[in-house]
Amino acid sequence: MTTTTRTRLTGVIPPVCTPLTPDLEIDVPSLERLVDFLIDAGVDGLFTLGSTSEVAYLPDGHRRRVLETVVARTAGRVPVLAGAIDMTTLRVAEHIDDAVKAGCDGVVATAPFYARTHPVEIERHFRFLAERSAVPVYAYDLPVSVHSALDSAMLLRLAAEGVLAGVKDSSGDEGGLRRLLLARDAAGAAVADFSVLTGSELTVDSALAMGADGVVPGLGNVDPHGYTGLFRLCREQDWAAARAEQERLVRLFDIVDVGGTARMGRGSSALGSFKAALHLRGVIDHPVTAPPQIQLDAAETARVADLLKGAGLL
Amino acid sequence: MTTTTRTRLTGVIPPVCTPLTPDLEIDVPSLERLVDFLIDAGVDGLFTLGSTSEVAYLPDGHRRRVLETVVARTAGRVPVLAGAIDMTTLRVAEHIDDAVKAGCDGVVATAPFYARTHPVEIERHFRFLAERSAVPVYAYDLPVSVHSALDSAMLLRLAAEGVLAGVKDSSGDEGGLRRLLLARDAAGAAVADFSVLTGSELTVDSALAMGADGVVPGLGNVDPHGYTGLFRLCREQDWAAARAEQERLVRLFDIVDVGGTARMGRGSSALGSFKAALHLRGVIDHPVTAPPQIQLDAAETARVADLLKGAGLL
Amino acid sequence: MTTTTRTRLTGVIPPVCTPLTPDLEIDVPSLERLVDFLIDAGVDGLFTLGSTSEVAYLPDGHRRRVLETVVARTAGRVPVLAGAIDMTTLRVAEHIDDAVKAGCDGVVATAPFYARTHPVEIERHFRFLAERSAVPVYAYDLPVSVHSALDSAMLLRLAAEGVLAGVKDSSGDEGGLRRLLLARDAAGAAVADFSVLTGSELTVDSALAMGADGVVPGLGNVDPHGYTGLFRLCREQDWAAARAEQERLVRLFDIVDVGGTARMGRGSSALGSFKAALHLRGVIDHPVTAPPQIQLDAAETARVADLLKGAGLL
Amino acid sequence: MTTTTRTRLTGVIPPVCTPLTPDLEIDVPSLERLVDFLIDAGVDGLFTLGSTSEVAYLPDGHRRRVLETVVARTAGRVPVLAGAIDMTTLRVAEHIDDAVKAGCDGVVATAPFYARTHPVEIERHFRFLAERSAVPVYAYDLPVSVHSALDSAMLLRLAAEGVLAGVKDSSGDEGGLRRLLLARDAAGAAVADFSVLTGSELTVDSALAMGADGVVPGLGNVDPHGYTGLFRLCREQDWAAARAEQERLVRLFDIVDVGGTARMGRGSSALGSFKAALHLRGVIDHPVTAPPQIQLDAAETARVADLLKGAGLL
Repeated sequence: MTTTTRTRLTGVIPPVCTPLTPDLEIDVPSLERLVDFLIDAGVDGLFTLGSTSEVAYLPDGHRRRVLETVVARTAGRVPVLAGAIDMTTLRVAEHIDDAVKAGCDGVVATAPFYARTHPVEIERHFRFLAERSAVPVYAYDLPVSVHSALDSAMLLRLAAEGVLAGVKDSSGDEGGLRRLLLARDAAGAAVADFSVLTGSELTVDSALAMGADGVVPGLGNVDPHGYTGLFRLCREQDWAAARAEQERLVRLFDIVDVGGTARMGRGSSALGSFKAALHLRGVIDHPVTAPPQIQLDAAETARVADLLKGAGLL
Repeated sequence: MTTTTRTRLTGVIPPVCTPLTPDLEIDVPSLERLVDFLIDAGVDGLFTLGSTSEVAYLPDGHRRRVLETVVARTAGRVPVLAGAIDMTTLRVAEHIDDAVKAGCDGVVATAPFYARTHPVEIERHFRFLAERSAVPVYAYDLPVSVHSALDSAMLLRLAAEGVLAGVKDSSGDEGGLRRLLLARDAAGAAVADFSVLTGSELTVDSALAMGADGVVPGLGNVDPHGYTGLFRLCREQDWAAARAEQERLVRLFDIVDVGGTARMGRGSSALGSFKAALHLRGVIDHPVTAPPQIQLDAAETARVADLLKGAGLL
Repeated sequence: MTTTTRTRLTGVIPPVCTPLTPDLEIDVPSLERLVDFLIDAGVDGLFTLGSTSEVAYLPDGHRRRVLETVVARTAGRVPVLAGAIDMTTLRVAEHIDDAVKAGCDGVVATAPFYARTHPVEIERHFRFLAERSAVPVYAYDLPVSVHSALDSAMLLRLAAEGVLAGVKDSSGDEGGLRRLLLARDAAGAAVADFSVLTGSELTVDSALAMGADGVVPGLGNVDPHGYTGLFRLCREQDWAAARAEQERLVRLFDIVDVGGTARMGRGSSALGSFKAALHLRGVIDHPVTAPPQIQLDAAETARVADLLKGAGLL
Repeated sequence: MTTTTRTRLTGVIPPVCTPLTPDLEIDVPSLERLVDFLIDAGVDGLFTLGSTSEVAYLPDGHRRRVLETVVARTAGRVPVLAGAIDMTTLRVAEHIDDAVKAGCDGVVATAPFYARTHPVEIERHFRFLAERSAVPVYAYDLPVSVHSALDSAMLLRLAAEGVLAGVKDSSGDEGGLRRLLLARDAAGAAVADFSVLTGSELTVDSALAMGADGVVPGLGNVDPHGYTGLFRLCREQDWAAARAEQERLVRLFDIVDVGGTARMGRGSSALGSFKAALHLRGVIDHPVTAPPQIQLDAAETARVADLLKGAGLL
């Protein structure tokens, strides 16, 4: 467990897409360009190996390659967080070791999955991970993937004890997010450095208006300038301009639906659209996603291009 | 993809528990004793790295150690299947490589999980795995863990094309199992070697009466003689004796509930009880389960002992 | 709560389809013919207003008409159970009043639904209903519709106190059914009259071999002679003949899939196929199902006819 | 289907609690006081027989009594909407008839539940209801109760055809709400009168900032002045003051947890706390909730009182 004094992590911290080559290796030059693209747009940190990074699809060698590439290319310009995504504690701990070895500044872990897990076991899981980790541990609340939600009282208890440095809330439950924020503020100094980041890229202005510290927007790969600008407008409390910018991004988010639900899953469509957009914008060389995902076809890609044009990005 | 002519896998193929040392390493001598205990009881195969093996809790190094130990100790006495359990295709493929390298006779894979996956992606997943595997691939239908079920028509389509060698049905849907068995028989020669194994250890007599080829009983770790005897009675169509033996095993199965649901999850209780029983029976040295699972306490272990006595096993 | 001494309810108790006219009224003559058809085939009771009866689709006036028609036509030849299906306690209690007034011999109620309900509230629910009911109350375990399952320990506790007369188990969990049966037998005289009926029409031979008292088969509308014959074979322990007959019925059950899943839900397809079969067999006048269900088209109906022919019923 | 020209429904429209007497009848004087309390606080409409009204717990006679009481007492001061909550189409249609007969200004219906329903059947359901209804029909998106969500494209299609007058969005999906609002605005005049109301009482400022027309806050029973004030602040775009007021209400919302989850369900705790608060504030005579809900005890009620004091309401 780290003993370093922390300041709360804030701002725009996109989950970095993982460019692949057609033969399914990490496309290192594309990943380096993406890192630069994001940092040049003013992001405040990088979250590598998150769900949007296709972490669930990447073997460990690929994951290590991603960590090394991103840390090296970032070169300390912004903090780098790493998803340590696996089924249970000992497996997650090994990913944490890899992230620490690669030089990441923090790690992000979900509740256990595949195994059915009791709340007391979830709490034990995070305690064990923090014990093992040389960098701060952030909890990742992602019920859509892990089929259990993180309890707010548990989060704040672990925050107060220094076990958790923050949470990435992808629960989609904005009321719950707000209750967590108020409970944190009520809990005082002991949890004052606990970061609350939202993964909901369509309601960033709302989340920041409520007091969230930052945002981890998948769509931030495609339009990082949009999200850094939006964050600034919110900090300036220019809510009308923030709303307009957020609405432009909501319209752009329609790209995630280009694949429909008949011939592929929502994941294939969403991750495929992000990569298609990055390819169309010239940031990455190949819009390839990992198997068993279905690739977007020409018509679907053309629809992504139309939406990029509509958002002023092509 | 293998081109070897196969015969259908049949009989009792227990998912082998993974004994751990108190410092959470693989307890090799205990695992070797367990392998002998099971083979000496007359089992027809071993399924290593299944859910009952705590596969979700074991890092890759632990998994490899298990595979090497089991294959070496088995020494060809029975076939060894290996669970290749991970989130998506490329990760599963690496586990398959490890299993093949270790000398396993077949591999067992679920639908993708964590990632939300469409039926066409599940089918692609199995095709990709079979393409990659040098040994037969069995599908593992486990909706309670992966949150999607395998479609019978897809299974038989993949069977007919030689992609899948069988299915371990842990869906708990006995009506669906029966429809699959009849559909297989109706489909004729092309799928005649497709094994249908049930993971439902409480209805083995029913499943065999319906025509299932075998059973993968977690409780078979604790009482392998019970399951091999039950299988023989069913093959002899001595249904009254089979029912009596199955009912003895159902009563023994009460061990899975000793931990209750208040202070631990069902998984901790069930896996803990299997290991406690193996420890009490002198097969393994430590009843330890992997984190974040909760360990059984003395009273809970005493209850396991009582139930073992009731079943004539202590 | 009834104080009458009971004997355990046993045998084949089909959930009676509810024939409708094209203008969505109860088709009384068709319903009378169906009642005769079932009783003439030797069924041991009738379960009216169950899920297969489209109870969820029928307004209260329709429900009362069904109860009156079935009770009058049955004229005491077999017991008549009535589903009292509604969201919570007071609403269910009114359906119980209607059933008692109509002269039914027992009522069947699920756990609450729509409202999210705690196990202690489910138990209170059944206690309240039994207090109110002048006839025996049976619990209906139907997690697919009500999204919570009934706990076996609770069922037996309520059985011992005379609150519940039995359970219709449509959980699809045959292992759980077996554990319940053994727990009932272990609990002795206090629960000896507690009936355990399975709603799983594809595994009747299995359930009866395990000790279940009877079966509530939706498909029994279409082929009641099949189910009464199957029950007799099981009671005679002619398991080979029982299996053959059950397998014929499993093949016939393919009618539930004729509508597919693209243009309608599984419910529309299944209930539509039962009514189409009854229409084709000349028992009811119209194959109409209630809105918002989709009606089977000519090709789908032709497929039902083919399957009826295959089962020797046309 | 109504042909009246409509204006979009807007503002604060609380789901009115249903006061009961200790013998579980409608407490008419208390309900009349509650209606006055809400209207005097400046609400823009009343939503009677919603989930917060315990509609799932009320027999039809109780429901009719509620409708008559509320319509009579309201006497046209604000529009009255009525929940027509039941499993499927014909049953819902009868509740609509009751609501129309009682003089309500609109009805609110969910997707079918208990029955498993396909999207095309959900659409048919709403079309059938609108055909039957003499007043505007609002869709109620409540996946937590009905286990299916309403598709935005379907909502707008039905809006454009005059089938639906609006939606009460209790999906908890604020990103989806925003996408719906932008899609509505993009669709132009045909859907311009389609009201989008949020049921999320903790993020009213966010929802109104996004363009939602109004809010249906359960907590608005307890503090209607809070919600009407909050609505006004949002309309005036005084976001800082709105946030402060919303946060006061979020803190007050802690009353829903006073019962915990050990001895009762969340519903019992939440509805019990609203009624306890109304009782403590002198609006209703009895804090009774309908069976099988568990009643709050003295300590839990004291905690409600403390939270009311904290919010300046006692």
